[in-house]
Amino acid sequence: MNLLLFEPEELSGSLLRLEAGDRRARHIREVLGLGQGDRLRVGMLNGKMGSGLIMGSNGGGFVIEVRLTAPPPVLPAVELILALPRPIMLQRILKQATVLGVRSFYLIRSRRVQKSYFQANLLQPAELRRFLLQGLEQAVDTRIPEVHIHQQFRPFIEEAAPTIRADSRLVAHPGTDANLAGLFKESRIRGSIVLAVGPEGGWNDFELQCFFDLGFCGFSMGPLILHVDTAVMVLLSQLKILQELTGPAVR
Amino acid sequence: MNLLLFEPEELSGSLLRLEAGDRRARHIREVLGLGQGDRLRVGMLNGKMGSGLIMGSNGGGFVIEVRLTAPPPVLPAVELILALPRPIMLQRILKQATVLGVRSFYLIRSRRVQKSYFQANLLQPAELRRFLLQGLEQAVDTRIPEVHIHQQFRPFIEEAAPTIRADSRLVAHPGTDANLAGLFKESRIRGSIVLAVGPEGGWNDFELQCFFDLGFCGFSMGPLILHVDTAVMVLLSQLKILQELTGPAVR
Repeated sequence: MNLLLFEPEELSGSLLRLEAGDRRARHIREVLGLGQGDRLRVGMLNGKMGSGLIMGSNGGGFVIEVRLTAPPPVLPAVELILALPRPIMLQRILKQATVLGVRSFYLIRSRRVQKSYFQANLLQPAELRRFLLQGLEQAVDTRIPEVHIHQQFRPFIEEAAPTIRADSRLVAHPGTDANLAGLFKESRIRGSIVLAVGPEGGWNDFELQCFFDLGFCGFSMGPLILHVDTAVMVLLSQLKILQELTGPAVR
Repeated sequence: MNLLLFEPEELSGSLLRLEAGDRRARHIREVLGLGQGDRLRVGMLNGKMGSGLIMGSNGGGFVIEVRLTAPPPVLPAVELILALPRPIMLQRILKQATVLGVRSFYLIRSRRVQKSYFQANLLQPAELRRFLLQGLEQAVDTRIPEVHIHQQFRPFIEEAAPTIRADSRLVAHPGTDANLAGLFKESRIRGSIVLAVGPEGGWNDFELQCFFDLGFCGFSMGPLILHVDTAVMVLLSQLKILQELTGPAVR
């Protein structure tokens, strides 16, 4: 936890009170080992960041005086369309992709996605939020990513996908000739990005064609065969540095 | 397992025999679900790759006729110097960094590395090999990475480090002004690369200066605060695409 996040309504005046049983209080006590007089980095969800001074602690809880001074960092814009992976993978991806700057997730059905994955407990708003917050705490950011869930491919591709604004549209698919370095050299990766990553086994032909029809460029990772969570991590890392090379496209 | 790896001495003529209890036989049976007449990708360790035809199976073992036709892929050269992390992290890093193309590891002492980590069972050659092979099986490559272990910083930096050949020398350190995109634009990331990644908490001043004295460029990952395994993964992904942008530097 590199940042103590709190909801606006948890603040009374400039004071934040954490009960002893609160996950954050436990972390401050047991991992950070902080106490009265110590400072730590704090941030209001979807708001500013700043520093907190621990005014007092009793029975394991804390009273923290909060000063919010700076807006959250401005990040290059990346949105991620993901064929819903199995929950254990999704957990990891939600957190890591948040750390790497994704601020909108579209979790969608694809032919090779098991329908049962949509019943996963992880897709409950409170559960999703838990992993997104872990990502923000590590990334030192306060802006909670949006998560959109689409249980059917067609309505997603016909209604939702066309409304996603991005300068560059990319769809990963094994066996495609192009690669990211090539697309970048052709100036086809610029500004804000929407990236679509398929299920293990890839998109089917129909799905891939739908993305192409929406102006997505296909690319592959060459001979590398990666699990989805690793592939997402590698691709987001690479897109991040490509965005840095051309200057920021902010959201 | 995207590639069935075997030692040269396991081959008799063109036949490879796997006992029923062999890890690879189990994988062919239980995960891949292959049997007589099926083909799979094979590779001889530190040698060629090709295809294998399952000639027969009995009692869970297999006899595979092997034809080796192609050299392993030519990869951009990356060597990784790593302040020895705790074993659970190292496990993950060995496998993932191998997948991403690292072919030499230098696991070294640094002030902020716990000495006890050097006693870890994982540093036994057979254990190290196990995770490296998992990486090669996934990456579809036959060249086993070298692992060098240095329990003292000074002999490493004075004797071993100067012998590491690389066109670009990089040392990651939080708080450094430069970043990878900036160094790349200044043409300071070119050709083969050696990357040094410190312990959680970073190198100390003396260690950092030693790297600078050897011509390493310092850089940071900006405001991102990542665990070592994630940082290594992100950096290797980024260096890989930067190498692709300038054309391959092979080893």
